[in-house]
This record gives sequence, structure tokens and C-alpha cells, in this order.
Amino acid sequence: MEHTLPHTISLLSRTPAALDALLRDLPEAWTLRNEGENSWSAFDVVGHLIHGERTDWIPRARIILQFGETKAFEPFDRWAQERESQGKSLGQLLDEFARLRSENLGELHALNLRQEDLERRGRHPALGPVTLSQLLATWAIHDLTHIHQISRIMAHQYREAVGPWNAYLGVLQCAGHSAP
Amino acid sequence: MEHTLPHTISLLSRTPAALDALLRDLPEAWTLRNEGENSWSAFDVVGHLIHGERTDWIPRARIILQFGETKAFEPFDRWAQERESQGKSLGQLLDEFARLRSENLGELHALNLRQEDLERRGRHPALGPVTLSQLLATWAIHDLTHIHQISRIMAHQYREAVGPWNAYLGVLQCAGHSAP
Repeated sequence: MEHTLPHTISLLSRTPAALDALLRDLPEAWTLRNEGENSWSAFDVVGHLIHGERTDWIPRARIILQFGETKAFEPFDRWAQERESQGKSLGQLLDEFARLRSENLGELHALNLRQEDLERRGRHPALGPVTLSQLLATWAIHDLTHIHQISRIMAHQYREAVGPWNAYLGVLQCAGHSAP
Repeated sequence: MEHTLPHTISLLSRTPAALDALLRDLPEAWTLRNEGENSWSAFDVVGHLIHGERTDWIPRARIILQFGETKAFEPFDRWAQERESQGKSLGQLLDEFARLRSENLGELHALNLRQEDLERRGRHPALGPVTLSQLLATWAIHDLTHIHQISRIMAHQYREAVGPWNAYLGVLQCAGHSAP
């Protein structure tokens, strides 16, 4: 389907509560373990989502609206959460993500975007020309990518515990598909 | 990590609220569309989870405890939800899933399982011998498989809307891995 702003907002507004319901107060055996070297735990993923709220989506939308294609976005730091999440609990990160998302949806609303704004173009440092519409659709699907990833990371912890059923559990066949 | 009953219960008890937070009152463009012929929508998946609560996990646990390997489980009907979800709203299905899961966790608690019970074996009609421990671990990872699937189904609806970002969004590279 085509991108529509209300559909995008309906997803973006639900992600913090969905992650909260899934992760808050879970045993750390689920939330702090990863899939092996150089991979992320659920805790790391929530930190990554926070960093996106601070530096990626709304800041990039503003760059598109202000500069169009004349100014490329800042590259996104995919490992920032190692630094920024230090010393915090998962509960604190979930609170912070919910607060930032809510603020950013408020900012999005205040931009009062019209259809012609959504068609405006900016410049991604690696992908080249992209539209504001594509940026906002990506914001929502980025949430889904990380829900997909968190379910896979947690399932990985029981890959042996399920015994012969591993053949039937799709999430255990998923090799991970995110760019490095 | 090894299967431990409290860890399994901690996941099982969160899934209904996580799906509720993600899906309730979302536009039907997200929840009723699938990934193409013979695939499921998020609505279908919730119906499938309900059917599992009714016919799979606790009934199979009882068969293991009562009959051991002498009686194979009933095969699971992966298309039952087509019939059973008819005429219901997604909100009704989410309510039904939450209620059944809560009842089943109550039944699990009442079984008062000891370590030696978890090691008891039953017989899966296709996979052969399986333990009660493996069945219960699979119950939890089956939830994660379907959270993984729902995130992928919904992302699929925006596969074109994200434009060139599709290369970076892992969930859009996921081919689906469940057995037919």
C-alpha cells in the first residue's frame, strides 16, 4: 500500500507500549543476552531505538524541509547505545523511549505536513535521493525491523531447549538480515 | 540457556499484552492484509494463537503426563482459525487470546510440575519423542515466532513506501521460515 501519514503514526505510536509489555521486568536471561559476537541484546535494541529518536527521524525530516537535497543527512551511529545506555536499567530505557517517541510525534504533528511536503526530497549520505514520505515510512518499518529482531534474539536463547521442534519454529531459521 | 519454567512463564504471560499494545485499533490496512496467496494476516495469526491455547499446549502436556509415549498428540490444525475467527473482530480475538492464555497459565501452575515431570516424554505424530520441557519451551518460542511473523507481515505492506531504505530494513529481507 502507499504511504499515508495516519497509518504511519498509528504504528509509531504503539511501539513503545508494545515493547514495554513484552520486555519490562523480564528476567535478564531474556533481555541481556545476544546472538553471539557483535550482535545485540534486546536491551541494546531499545538503546538503538532511543538514539534514533534523538538523532535520526525528526532531525532528518527537518533537514529535508529546510535544505532539500543540498545537505546530506548525518550518518547514523549504529553503536551509539553502547555508550549511551551504560549504567541504565531496561526499565529506564523503556521509559526514555516512550517519552522521546511521544515528543517526536508531537513535533511531527506540529510540522503540519501537506502532501506536497511529503514529496520533498532530501539526500541520504549512502542511498542518495529520498523523499520525506519514504523517511517517515521507514521510521515505522524500522520499529518493525527491531520487533522482528528482538523476537529472534530472545528465541535464540531457547534454540536448544525446544529440542526437535526447532524445525517448525520460523524464528529459529531467521539468520538476521540487517545491514551491518 | 537451559529451559527453566519461570523463564518460560515470564514470556508466556507477556505475549497477550504485547500483541494488544501493538495491534488493537490499528487500521485494518495493517491487520487484515497478508503477504500474498496462502499467507496470513496479523488477524489470522491471533486466531492461530487462540487455537493453540485451546488444542495444543496444555492438552499435549496432559497427554504426556497421562500417557507418556504410548499416545501420540493430535496433529495441530494450522488453518483452524479460518473457520473459528469468522465474524469476530480483532479486538474480540485479542480478548479471547488473553483470557485463554491466563486460564492456561493457571492450569500450568496447578500441574505443580517438578523437575522429573519436565523430563517425561511424549510422542509427537511427526517429530517422534519429545519431553514436556521441550513442549513448554516451544510454547514460548511459538509466541516469538508469531511476533516475528506479525512484524514481517505488517512491514510487507510498506515494502514500496520505504523506497531505497528497503536495503537497510532487515524485516523486509525475511523470507518467512515457518513450516507449511
